[in-house]
Amino acid sequence: MAKYAKPLMRLIDELNSLPGIGGKSAQRLAFHILSMEEDDVKALAGAMLNAKQQMKYCSVCGNLTDTNPCSICSDSSRDSSTVCVVESPRDVAAMERIKEFKGKYHVLHGCISPVDGIGPEDINLKSLLLRLQKEAVEEVILATNPTIEGEATAMYIARLLKPAGIKVSRIAHGLPVGGDLEYADEVTISKSLENRKEL
Amino acid sequence: MAKYAKPLMRLIDELNSLPGIGGKSAQRLAFHILSMEEDDVKALAGAMLNAKQQMKYCSVCGNLTDTNPCSICSDSSRDSSTVCVVESPRDVAAMERIKEFKGKYHVLHGCISPVDGIGPEDINLKSLLLRLQKEAVEEVILATNPTIEGEATAMYIARLLKPAGIKVSRIAHGLPVGGDLEYADEVTISKSLENRKEL
Repeated sequence: MAKYAKPLMRLIDELNSLPGIGGKSAQRLAFHILSMEEDDVKALAGAMLNAKQQMKYCSVCGNLTDTNPCSICSDSSRDSSTVCVVESPRDVAAMERIKEFKGKYHVLHGCISPVDGIGPEDINLKSLLLRLQKEAVEEVILATNPTIEGEATAMYIARLLKPAGIKVSRIAHGLPVGGDLEYADEVTISKSLENRKEL
Repeated sequence: MAKYAKPLMRLIDELNSLPGIGGKSAQRLAFHILSMEEDDVKALAGAMLNAKQQMKYCSVCGNLTDTNPCSICSDSSRDSSTVCVVESPRDVAAMERIKEFKGKYHVLHGCISPVDGIGPEDINLKSLLLRLQKEAVEEVILATNPTIEGEATAMYIARLLKPAGIKVSRIAHGLPVGGDLEYADEVTISKSLENRKEL
């Protein structure tokens, strides 16, 4: 690592501590920041602080938002009777991208993972149960990730909600569209066979 | 591109405008920044502004520094009679890494490139000439990059200084240590042959 003057070293160190930014990238970014106009650096630094200070979790669904409740929860044109349960705010964004789902969301902020010591009480699950008691929810769509932990979390929630008479569904597993059978893993192929649809 | 609340979108856009950071990386970084402690975000944002505001160019050599003259120029234990001319502050750092060169530096901030409309008057060359008039410099080592523009710049400076009776040298070209003859380009191999040393 090269030695620079202190303010530059401090900036390189700070950038280096971000995920996916190694020593070389941090140096390149730091020199780029030095070459920027001071107003642009202020805008960049301000955007960071502003985002950190203004973005909160929605008290209803747990999604990241700058208003409370969030724009989805307060949108009366959306169907409150369907709640899609996801692991993270990024999953909400992914769902919203398809522009098809018109229900509401619930963000768990993680999934149950006994190996990592994360139990049902460590994720945003309690508020989902309270929400189901208050709101007239007819269907809960479990859209946790298709990983071992995501599956386990979906199974756990399903077992919890079924006795309450709420319809619980899980998003389908199968081959990704545009994917290649040859490169698909065995579990995915097996799932795609198991869930085959009559044409 | 997914839609998020405004403060988050603004942060993603700002990060996306940095070199080497695409849409996905910008999103990942933005979410990471939201997950950081507010004090850590302040430290990161502060480091950017602080570096931009405190780092200046040394009035003697043109290197990036937070003091003027820079720590190298004001270091009396270094040999003022040898000046190594480089293109950028990063090259100074690269040179300093080898811990062998005990002379001083001069940073050109670019190189002569007629294609890009950069002439001798557009780089930090005039101050080098003034410096050579004032200081007792015996040797100027031209360490511009081994590119066409770097070579041309070195040739230009050499022709300018030679009449003044100053010893001018150019760093050696050849195969990089640890490199592979098989993968070296023709010009480099030709240079390494031309500059061969008797053992």
